[in-house]
Amino acid sequence: MYSHHSKPPQCRLYGAPYSISTSRVAVVLNEKNIEYEWRIVDTGNRGLRILRSEHKEPRYLALNPFGKTPLFQDHEVTMYESRAVIRHIARKHDEHGPHLYGTNEKERTMVDQWLEVESQNFNPAIAPAVYHLVFAAWFGKIGDVRVVNPSIARLEKVLDVYESQLMKTKPHVQSWWTSIFNRPSWMSHLLKAYPKIYFNPHA
Amino acid sequence: MYSHHSKPPQCRLYGAPYSISTSRVAVVLNEKNIEYEWRIVDTGNRGLRILRSEHKEPRYLALNPFGKTPLFQDHEVTMYESRAVIRHIARKHDEHGPHLYGTNEKERTMVDQWLEVESQNFNPAIAPAVYHLVFAAWFGKIGDVRVVNPSIARLEKVLDVYESQLMKTKPHVQSWWTSIFNRPSWMSHLLKAYPKIYFNPHA
Repeated sequence: MYSHHSKPPQCRLYGAPYSISTSRVAVVLNEKNIEYEWRIVDTGNRGLRILRSEHKEPRYLALNPFGKTPLFQDHEVTMYESRAVIRHIARKHDEHGPHLYGTNEKERTMVDQWLEVESQNFNPAIAPAVYHLVFAAWFGKIGDVRVVNPSIARLEKVLDVYESQLMKTKPHVQSWWTSIFNRPSWMSHLLKAYPKIYFNPHA
Repeated sequence: MYSHHSKPPQCRLYGAPYSISTSRVAVVLNEKNIEYEWRIVDTGNRGLRILRSEHKEPRYLALNPFGKTPLFQDHEVTMYESRAVIRHIARKHDEHGPHLYGTNEKERTMVDQWLEVESQNFNPAIAPAVYHLVFAAWFGKIGDVRVVNPSIARLEKVLDVYESQLMKTKPHVQSWWTSIFNRPSWMSHLLKAYPKIYFNPHA
């Protein structure tokens, strides 16, 4: 574990660079322009030649007994579960940067609804494909291609709903995806989390 | 679909009686003592001899394009995803009944964390066992017992964490379970949702 910053941070994020849940929190911190100390948790990755499982060690389990990343700390809380962490950050820093949790009860409710859609529909659909196409190899395993097609088929159904929903506000999934992918908060995180993949010529 | 009430309700819940997600919303409405109209959605249940799939019909998909129950309506919103619905009810009716979403930011954050623990740890662990031990037969299928043991083993690990967490506030999982199981909000829902199983001698 090491720190990216030398001065005392407002908060601390424990997580693995390639962890999607860790990225979820990092991007929200970036959106809010909140400085944080990123403590790399070695969750065992043969591709990166880090072979310990720090998230299963007693000192980590004392902070998150479920033994998962990310873990988040600020002056008020030590907590886990990325979708709870981003709600906390959005509420606590509502006046600072974009109003990620909406500006009234109806918007907050819709943010909650679409966060749950991601958690209960999008993620379960896409996760098997991502695991077997990407992560399996990183963990030194062979991905099972038979899992990929049903996962993609399920994902397509979810994206069909996104498409019809986004038609009301944004011109379709493709442009929505492009707009969120190109947000500075996300690009900044990619450069930090995947330095070998996303080379920054201006760094 | 039919209504349990004749006067106009504050809100409406579309769902199947045996749906766990629907129960999640019903119990929170009961906790808040909010009158609601329950519109039964026939999601196809051979055990109950209801064989349509109303949640896949166009008039239902127009309200919830993911084709799942529950669906919730009040004067402000039409929404889905049970864990988003209960957050909405808890926020909107915070002054009415128990403060389900806590009374300060730290408590709200811990409510969010444990809601996510349920969604990401408890439910994925227990769901396969519940499906293969209970629901499969209801759907006219044969449960696969080979799925049950790993599911229970995973659940036990989650409950071990609950146990150590509850030691700080409640004397262990068993008494916590007894206390929530016996809440009037839950008993009232069981009598409504499972009238053949939970016979109420005082009804």
